[in-house]
Amino acid sequence: MKDFKFELRVQFFDTDKMQVVHHANYIRYFETARTEYLREVGFPYSEMEKHDFQMPVLGVNAKFKSSAFYDDVLLVSCRISKVAHASMEMEYVIINKETGQVLVTGNSKHGFTNRALRPVALKKHDPEIYEMFKALYEAGKK
Amino acid sequence: MKDFKFELRVQFFDTDKMQVVHHANYIRYFETARTEYLREVGFPYSEMEKHDFQMPVLGVNAKFKSSAFYDDVLLVSCRISKVAHASMEMEYVIINKETGQVLVTGNSKHGFTNRALRPVALKKHDPEIYEMFKALYEAGKK
Amino acid sequence: MKDFKFELRVQFFDTDKMQVVHHANYIRYFETARTEYLREVGFPYSEMEKHDFQMPVLGVNAKFKSSAFYDDVLLVSCRISKVAHASMEMEYVIINKETGQVLVTGNSKHGFTNRALRPVALKKHDPEIYEMFKALYEAGKK
Amino acid sequence: MKDFKFELRVQFFDTDKMQVVHHANYIRYFETARTEYLREVGFPYSEMEKHDFQMPVLGVNAKFKSSAFYDDVLLVSCRISKVAHASMEMEYVIINKETGQVLVTGNSKHGFTNRALRPVALKKHDPEIYEMFKALYEAGKK
Repeated sequence: MKDFKFELRVQFFDTDKMQVVHHANYIRYFETARTEYLREVGFPYSEMEKHDFQMPVLGVNAKFKSSAFYDDVLLVSCRISKVAHASMEMEYVIINKETGQVLVTGNSKHGFTNRALRPVALKKHDPEIYEMFKALYEAGKK
Repeated sequence: MKDFKFELRVQFFDTDKMQVVHHANYIRYFETARTEYLREVGFPYSEMEKHDFQMPVLGVNAKFKSSAFYDDVLLVSCRISKVAHASMEMEYVIINKETGQVLVTGNSKHGFTNRALRPVALKKHDPEIYEMFKALYEAGKK
Repeated sequence: MKDFKFELRVQFFDTDKMQVVHHANYIRYFETARTEYLREVGFPYSEMEKHDFQMPVLGVNAKFKSSAFYDDVLLVSCRISKVAHASMEMEYVIINKETGQVLVTGNSKHGFTNRALRPVALKKHDPEIYEMFKALYEAGKK
Repeated sequence: MKDFKFELRVQFFDTDKMQVVHHANYIRYFETARTEYLREVGFPYSEMEKHDFQMPVLGVNAKFKSSAFYDDVLLVSCRISKVAHASMEMEYVIINKETGQVLVTGNSKHGFTNRALRPVALKKHDPEIYEMFKALYEAGKK
């Protein structure tokens, strides 16, 4: 999974009056890519629910290096960059598919909780998921 | 309540690359005005919940006559335009506060349901709310 | 092009606290499908710009029949339902891909303008596009 | 201006299926507060345009400590936390107005550019604005 990349196209409603994608929408692109990454590794949302598990966002940051424009095709890559007892982190890079230019980099931090959003120590709550995340983290190391 | 008007300011993230408010956002402005209208008449969301009542949107339509721009101040007026057994309708007019120009007109249709989103005949489910809506409808007639 | 269908997946950020897609987002789904339809028929946005042509939204309406949920895959079909001198209309049907259930129907009306958003009589401004729209309209008739 | 606080109400469309404000929307709340802050200090967007000046967002980060719910009233405070030659930073704290609880903290980094989005050294480009930002920074120090 070192090379997971999600492809998406910039929508008209994603742009703002500067004629580029509004910066808050990249945070949404991160989420879309994260969802597809987890589906790809066999852990889609439906599976999370069966495991009584959620991953609320505890923090996010992004650096906007260059702009995406309407109808551009973007590639959003993501990987797990840290796994701790009660949280993990993911990293993102968004590039323009055609030019290869890096537009945005960022990361997000996620708590491990049960469905009622109460924090859990994942290793105890669900060792299987914990090991999967650990293995993905190792596989994604640069 | 014939003259309820909600004032809002166009945000940067509401605009699109045509440099005007993206049309889908006016549907959101309708919702904001509707919420404030119901608060104004003494029936805010918290009150709805106590009455085991919801009003999901069954339909919406809008005509876009002129554009709103970033930082414009808009007035969104709304009124109840129809009350039936299991649904009601509301009408909206959005004007530019400074110029008075009409930018958007529209309406929305709402079902009456309990909190589980099952349709109810409002007159039986909650005569008090039904009569309030009827009275507001009468008061809002042109 | 009678059977154009665009597939999209419901994103987490598309849902609201009723746990379903927020109604204003279906208006965005219409736009995404419209964009892809025009690309499919050989008239993507880049081509529109070359023709000094735009199609601002003059009106939209939608009926919400059933709900879409997070991670659902939807099919949005669209077709040109009317072509006039200075405007045209499109129709949309959104179904749940898995169940085939119709969730939303709607239409939008679009003006024909040049890039400066001044209305044009399309037949004169660009007979080629006008004939294409007419042919698509005929092909899409039920 | 040490104590600038912008009040806003959580909209229905701001929530997601976890029944709380979607995290990307707090980035929008930052923007709204920033806009109002700049208006308050006498430098609204219309004034920026006269100065051939823009402040594109170069980066943003946020920590989500607790949730905001539909119809909650929030206070978003912001202040200038750094002024450099070609960029500045702002800090934000979002609290629940009723409870005083801190929900979100964050900051944003902004480049100084002309209207064509070319970077400028603000001290040279517009000493007046530069000094205003410096003075606001000093006034906002904790």
